[in-house]
Amino acid sequence: MPDTKYEISETRRDEFKVIMEITKRAAVFNEKEVYTVTELLEGYEEGPEESGYYFLSCRAVAHPERNAEESKEVRPGQVIGYACWGPRQLSGNGYDLYWICADPAVHSKGVGRALMNRVEDEIRQRNGAWVVIETSDTDHYAPARRLYERCGYTLAMLLKDFYHDGDGLCTYTKRLR
Amino acid sequence: MPDTKYEISETRRDEFKVIMEITKRAAVFNEKEVYTVTELLEGYEEGPEESGYYFLSCRAVAHPERNAEESKEVRPGQVIGYACWGPRQLSGNGYDLYWICADPAVHSKGVGRALMNRVEDEIRQRNGAWVVIETSDTDHYAPARRLYERCGYTLAMLLKDFYHDGDGLCTYTKRLR
Repeated sequence: MPDTKYEISETRRDEFKVIMEITKRAAVFNEKEVYTVTELLEGYEEGPEESGYYFLSCRAVAHPERNAEESKEVRPGQVIGYACWGPRQLSGNGYDLYWICADPAVHSKGVGRALMNRVEDEIRQRNGAWVVIETSDTDHYAPARRLYERCGYTLAMLLKDFYHDGDGLCTYTKRLR
Repeated sequence: MPDTKYEISETRRDEFKVIMEITKRAAVFNEKEVYTVTELLEGYEEGPEESGYYFLSCRAVAHPERNAEESKEVRPGQVIGYACWGPRQLSGNGYDLYWICADPAVHSKGVGRALMNRVEDEIRQRNGAWVVIETSDTDHYAPARRLYERCGYTLAMLLKDFYHDGDGLCTYTKRLR
């Protein structure tokens, strides 16, 4: 389905709750990781320029061609995914994509890719050169890694057992200019 | 000179000022980077277990064989270097070495290596598996990169122009177990 089904803009304060719900529903994240999103949202609320944490919400828009089956799943305006990104401290050109998360109800429908494109646009507008994404090398995160690879990211570093024994760190990078 | 000339232990509150002086004297760090050390020290003072920032001071000890020339430079008890390190958030096995800095007056005398060994010992005691060091690829930081390589670190990732155009990110790693 085309990206035009979605609308992406800065996360609003009244969307924090649904963002936490999506995060919990995503099931790949453990309790500590879910808590991290709370901290990132707090930083965003205080001010992204100070905290370095920017949030974007992806919302469903009314679609004339949508059939009844789809309409049941997602109502117009509903938040169906989000991304958190920000500049790396002490770096003028480097940006981190901290979180990218689509509601399990809409997985494989382009929400992840649409958010990724938008984050990269934001970084390009700031004349950024690099996007860095850290993720796990476990099977659990294989769909996330596939998304990054489809979006043109390269596995630049792999540190086996970094998070825990059997759970390594994958650092994906993409040069934007 | 042997490491026994130095004594390394947790940084004391009354050493914060000299640590900032050493940082400024080191000359490789710009104003923003120097300010970062202030923030790390604040985190350390609040509590390393909460902030994740641990500091170690390296101090000169009296040395019976030291000649008059050397005694002029460094008095016993004087802080001649420091390191700041800590666990990576959400990681049980990964640790960052944020800063390692020797007083220019004692460069090339083993202070950096002694601090590095001690940081690795601390991480091993916590059953850590990885040490990660981020630094710049500029000529300015060549002595630092040489220290890491001499201490067994591998350049695991290089992102050209990451900090600024012409100033890239080198990520050095070492597996401890």
